[in-house]
Amino acid sequence: MPRIAYVNGQYVPHRNARVHVEDRGYQFADGIYEVCLVIGGKYWDLDGHLARLERSLKELKMRAPMQRASLIVVMQEVLARNHLRDALVYMQVTRGVAPRNHPFPSDIIEPALVVTAQRFDLDASDAQAEQGGSVITQLDIRWGRVDIKTVALLPNVLAKQAAKSVGAVEAWLVRDGKVTEGSSSNAWIVDQNGVLITHPKGHEILGGITRENVIVCAEELQIKVEERPFTTDEAHGASEAFLTSAANIVLPVTQIDGKPVGAGAPGPVALRLREAYKARARRLA
Amino acid sequence: MPRIAYVNGQYVPHRNARVHVEDRGYQFADGIYEVCLVIGGKYWDLDGHLARLERSLKELKMRAPMQRASLIVVMQEVLARNHLRDALVYMQVTRGVAPRNHPFPSDIIEPALVVTAQRFDLDASDAQAEQGGSVITQLDIRWGRVDIKTVALLPNVLAKQAAKSVGAVEAWLVRDGKVTEGSSSNAWIVDQNGVLITHPKGHEILGGITRENVIVCAEELQIKVEERPFTTDEAHGASEAFLTSAANIVLPVTQIDGKPVGAGAPGPVALRLREAYKARARRLA
Repeated sequence: MPRIAYVNGQYVPHRNARVHVEDRGYQFADGIYEVCLVIGGKYWDLDGHLARLERSLKELKMRAPMQRASLIVVMQEVLARNHLRDALVYMQVTRGVAPRNHPFPSDIIEPALVVTAQRFDLDASDAQAEQGGSVITQLDIRWGRVDIKTVALLPNVLAKQAAKSVGAVEAWLVRDGKVTEGSSSNAWIVDQNGVLITHPKGHEILGGITRENVIVCAEELQIKVEERPFTTDEAHGASEAFLTSAANIVLPVTQIDGKPVGAGAPGPVALRLREAYKARARRLA
Repeated sequence: MPRIAYVNGQYVPHRNARVHVEDRGYQFADGIYEVCLVIGGKYWDLDGHLARLERSLKELKMRAPMQRASLIVVMQEVLARNHLRDALVYMQVTRGVAPRNHPFPSDIIEPALVVTAQRFDLDASDAQAEQGGSVITQLDIRWGRVDIKTVALLPNVLAKQAAKSVGAVEAWLVRDGKVTEGSSSNAWIVDQNGVLITHPKGHEILGGITRENVIVCAEELQIKVEERPFTTDEAHGASEAFLTSAANIVLPVTQIDGKPVGAGAPGPVALRLREAYKARARRLA
């Protein structure tokens, strides 16, 4: 059974999923995306993803490719055609195809929409979570509007590759001495008083869907959360650290730049949050 | 006669020029490009463009899609198949197609190469140059390595659109009070002593091929050039301003943020440089 992708109005075999070379996503990174988690056939926090998608479109003055209800139909259809019940669904919208020129093309250009899916299990990162992972720090040299979830991800790619090349799972990005977030995840520490600290929302980080839900889980577990920037020194002195993303859920960070965090092993707060998150996602999806 | 594009080993009708949705150029802006000028069937400063292309690849640790000599054959073939003697040739290289994941894929992935061409005449911007154009200033919120000619152009698109929406030809980008460059061109002023000033090369600007050749032309015309950052105040007090790019050559700037520059008309230095540049390009191509 071939993998099926949705591309601009058609369901096609994944290997034939193609866009024009003058799609502005290809030539200008003039596009946005979402990665959604599907648990037991149901989208997890679909409202959160669609609200963020709509915000990204608005910030870039980009038209939606279709109404929200129609988009949901396409997203369900991609799942069904791939016979998936536990999946990651990738959705990309670009400003469409037009002769190459920097300014926005005319409004009559149709935005492009691509939706793909792959099998994914909520427990997929369990082994990694038990072991924990190390992160490195890198200068945050990204542009000034990383709160918009755009495909202009080259700086993130370079940071992630720098991490991978030394066996780390993520690069934490540092601007003015403060950790903003990871290259494809949000960054968290637990201080010596058990307070959870993560960078506040704003133009400097992407407001993650997982991030929001982890804050809810922390509140349910009566763990105090402070949304404020933290320094690399604070991270080195933390009792725990972890990262969050749709694919990794809550992943304990056991080393930062080669130095152990706390006991150098996955911490109890991270592991409790991970379990709480999974339970919440399975309950509410 | 259909327009022909080169896409990953094949010459195809332009309307069928497609790449896979998992081309990393589409999902990560993990690619670079060049726009080359062809005059009378000959590439202008091809060495300059190919050297910059190779530098971009090197900075991103990206493999070349083919040897330089083979690339030149493709570039000539695209011209020939489109029966073009005066053209702009667009060339894009990406890290290739791989399942979506931030780090670089394995080295066995083939880089992608797209080459397209369109008719273009060196005199195309003459009417605009006689009239001059206005620019606006915008905060330079781009990433920290704009010296690499990548397709992560979304910030440039937004700046250019901001200019277009108020009838300006370009947005000049300002970082720490200094004009770095335009959204798709280099920025220049002529001070009251007739000295040409433009931002020095470095990580903050793209070292333009046209920029380099304008400096040579200025030297031939015995115009003094200072490569240093200039402030927006200096720009407002300049006797002339202009921008340079492959497509616009030298284009006089007559207004900045609604205020006239010098006499508010195209200045003599800009127009002399424009003529000298065209003559040099026609002589050397």
